Amino acid sequence: MPPVPGVALGTAAAGLRYQGRDDLLLVRLAPGSTVAAMFTRNAFAAAPVLLAREHLARARPRLLLVNAGQANAGLGERGLADARACCAAAAALEGLRPEEVLPYSTGVIGEPLPVERLVAALPRAREALREEGWEAAARAILTTDTRPKLASRTVGSGSWRATLTGMVKGAGMIRPDMIRPEMAAAPLPGQGQARHATLLAFLATDAALAPELAAELLEEAVAGSFHCLTVDGDTSTNDACTLVASGRAGPPPDADALAALRRGLRRVCEELARAVARDGEGATRLVTIEVGEARDEAEARQVAFTVAHSPLVKTALFAADPNWGRILAAVGRAGVEGLAVEGVRLYAGAGPEEVCLARGGARSPDYDEGRARAAL
Amino acid sequence: MPPVPGVALGTAAAGLRYQGRDDLLLVRLAPGSTVAAMFTRNAFAAAPVLLAREHLARARPRLLLVNAGQANAGLGERGLADARACCAAAAALEGLRPEEVLPYSTGVIGEPLPVERLVAALPRAREALREEGWEAAARAILTTDTRPKLASRTVGSGSWRATLTGMVKGAGMIRPDMIRPEMAAAPLPGQGQARHATLLAFLATDAALAPELAAELLEEAVAGSFHCLTVDGDTSTNDACTLVASGRAGPPPDADALAALRRGLRRVCEELARAVARDGEGATRLVTIEVGEARDEAEARQVAFTVAHSPLVKTALFAADPNWGRILAAVGRAGVEGLAVEGVRLYAGAGPEEVCLARGGARSPDYDEGRARAAL
Repeated sequence: MPPVPGVALGTAAAGLRYQGRDDLLLVRLAPGSTVAAMFTRNAFAAAPVLLAREHLARARPRLLLVNAGQANAGLGERGLADARACCAAAAALEGLRPEEVLPYSTGVIGEPLPVERLVAALPRAREALREEGWEAAARAILTTDTRPKLASRTVGSGSWRATLTGMVKGAGMIRPDMIRPEMAAAPLPGQGQARHATLLAFLATDAALAPELAAELLEEAVAGSFHCLTVDGDTSTNDACTLVASGRAGPPPDADALAALRRGLRRVCEELARAVARDGEGATRLVTIEVGEARDEAEARQVAFTVAHSPLVKTALFAADPNWGRILAAVGRAGVEGLAVEGVRLYAGAGPEEVCLARGGARSPDYDEGRARAAL
Repeated sequence: MPPVPGVALGTAAAGLRYQGRDDLLLVRLAPGSTVAAMFTRNAFAAAPVLLAREHLARARPRLLLVNAGQANAGLGERGLADARACCAAAAALEGLRPEEVLPYSTGVIGEPLPVERLVAALPRAREALREEGWEAAARAILTTDTRPKLASRTVGSGSWRATLTGMVKGAGMIRPDMIRPEMAAAPLPGQGQARHATLLAFLATDAALAPELAAELLEEAVAGSFHCLTVDGDTSTNDACTLVASGRAGPPPDADALAALRRGLRRVCEELARAVARDGEGATRLVTIEVGEARDEAEARQVAFTVAHSPLVKTALFAADPNWGRILAAVGRAGVEGLAVEGVRLYAGAGPEEVCLARGGARSPDYDEGRARAAL
C-alpha cells in the first residue's frame, strides 16, 4: 500500500480480547496536518466517539489511538474516564496534550476497556510507527472481519501529485449514518454510550487541505460510498470515518487538481465500502442496487435501502431466485409519493447478461427464468 | 367457533395451486349488512385490492370472494380483468350485481389466476354456505401458514349480546400497513398491481353498526393489533382487513354496550395478530415489545419496529442471548429526538422473571446473565 508522507502507523498486541495478534494502533500525524471526521448519529454513541468529538472541538489532532476487541461502550461514566486515561497516556509518550489524541474503539459492548494492558502496549506501538505501516494497521483494527481492507490512488494534475491511501474495518452492525462532530451538538439525536461491531474508516493524503475543504471532501465521499452501504441495516454506536491531510504534497494547485483529488477520494471510499459489503458477516453475495429516474437522491436511497433491507428480497437473492414480486413489493412500500406502477422497470445482472424482470406492473413479456437466474 | 347470525361461509377446492384441500371461500352477508375494510398502502396493490376499492365505492357488499394460492398480482390489466370476471360469475350465481362482490386473493405473484377453474368451483362453495363454516373457511384461505387462526368473543351490556368472530391468514411478507379505501384515492402512494404472501383478516359481528362507526371501530382495532405486528417487515401488496356487521343483534343500545363491542373487537384482533406472529415463516419465538414513556404512540411504534426489524436483535433473541448492546444500538438509531441515554431502561421477561438488562446508558448493576438468558 503506498505510504502517505507525514502519516506513520504503528501497531502492537495489547491482548485486549484477541490473542496472538495486534489489536492496538497508533497513527502519528505530522505537525500542521488537517483532520476531518464524521461520527455515528446513533444516540448511544460510545465513549471514544463522545471524547473524540470533544477533542476535535478543542485542538488539532496529532495522534489517533485505535483499539480492537473492546468497544468501550455501554459503560456510562467509567467508559469516558477510561478513554480519557488512554488518550492521556498516549499524549504523554509523544509530548502532546490529551486533546490532541483522537480515540477509536471497536469490539464487544459492555466490557470495561483493560486500560492498564492498553497503556502498557503503547510504547511498543509507538516504536513500530512507520509510514509503511498500513497493512499491519489494517489488520490490527479488525474484529469479526475475515480480511484487511485497503485501497489507494495516486492523483494529480500537471506536475502536482498526491497519494490517497485508506483502510476500513467492519463486517456486522453495518449501516453507517455519520455526521460532522460540530453537528452532533445540535438538536440531532442526543449523546450517550453503547455499541458493538462497527465501521471504522481511516483515509490519508499528503495533499494540503484547509479544514473546511477537508470536511467537505470527506462528507461528499462518504455520501457516495459508506452512506450507500448496508450489511444488516443496524447503525453502530461507534462508526467513525476520518480523513487526514498531512500537507506534505502541498495544496492542489488548480481546479483540475482539486477535482482529481475529489474523484480519487470518492473512488477509494467506494472501493473500501464494497470491501466491507463483500466481507459482511455471513455474506455470500455482493449486491449493487441502482435506482434510476428518482425524483432526487433521497428518494433513490429510500427505494434502494427498502429493497436492500427486505428479508424476503435477501433470501431470494441468496438463492439466486429472480423473485421480482418481492422486489416490486419492497419498492411499493418505500413511500415514494405518487409512484406509477406502470413506469417501474426491474433489471437484474449487468452488461450483456442484463435481463428485464418486470415492467408495466407485470412480469416482463420477454422474461426468461433461466436467464434471470443466471444473471443473479 | 361461534357463528355470527347473518354471515354464512362456504368453501370448495378449485385446484388453483394446492391439491387435496379447499382454496376458495365465499362469504354471504345478509341484506342490510355493513362492511368496513382497510387495504394495503403498498403502491403495488394487487388487482383484487384495486377492484375491491372500486366496488366499495359503488355498492354495499353482499358477497366476499377469497382465493388462496394465486395472488393475482403483477399481471397488469389482465389481472384486473380476471378479478372482474370472477366477481361477475359469483354475482350471477347469487343474483347480485358484480360490484356487490368484494374479491381477495393471496398466494404466488405473477401467475395468472386460473379463472375457469375458480368459476367452476363457485357453485360448490355456494352449496357449502353455512353459518358454522368458520373453521373450514379459516383453512381454505391459508398459504404458507401452518395452521388456521380464529378468535371469538361474546360481548354485551344489560340484556344486549353480540358475537364477534374472526379469522386471519398470514405467515410471511407481514408488516401490515392499511388504510380505508376512500383514502387510497388521495395523494398517498399510488396504485398498481403485484404481491405474494399476505395478511387477510375477516371479522364479523351480528351487532348493527352504521358504516362510519364500523369503519372507526375497525381502524381503532387494527391500530392496536395488526398494525403492531411484524414478521419480516415486508408490507404485502394484498393485505386486507374486513369487518362485517350483519345487524341481526341490533345496534349497541348504550355507551356501555358500544364500549364492550369496541374492546371485544380489539381483543379479537390482538389475538389474531399474535397468532400470525406465532405462525410466522420460520419463527421460533413470539416477542412482545413494550415501549414506555414515549412522547406519543408514533414514537413508541418507531422504537418498537426499529428494534423488531434489527437482524442483530433477531439473531440474539433466536439464541436467547441477552445482547442488550444490540437493543440499545437499535433504540439509538430509531430517530428519537433528544433521546437521553441515561433515561433508557431495558427489561427482558415478564412478571417474576423480569430482569433489568440496562439502565443509565450501561449494563444494569444487578445484571445476571443466567437470569437474563432464562428470561429470554
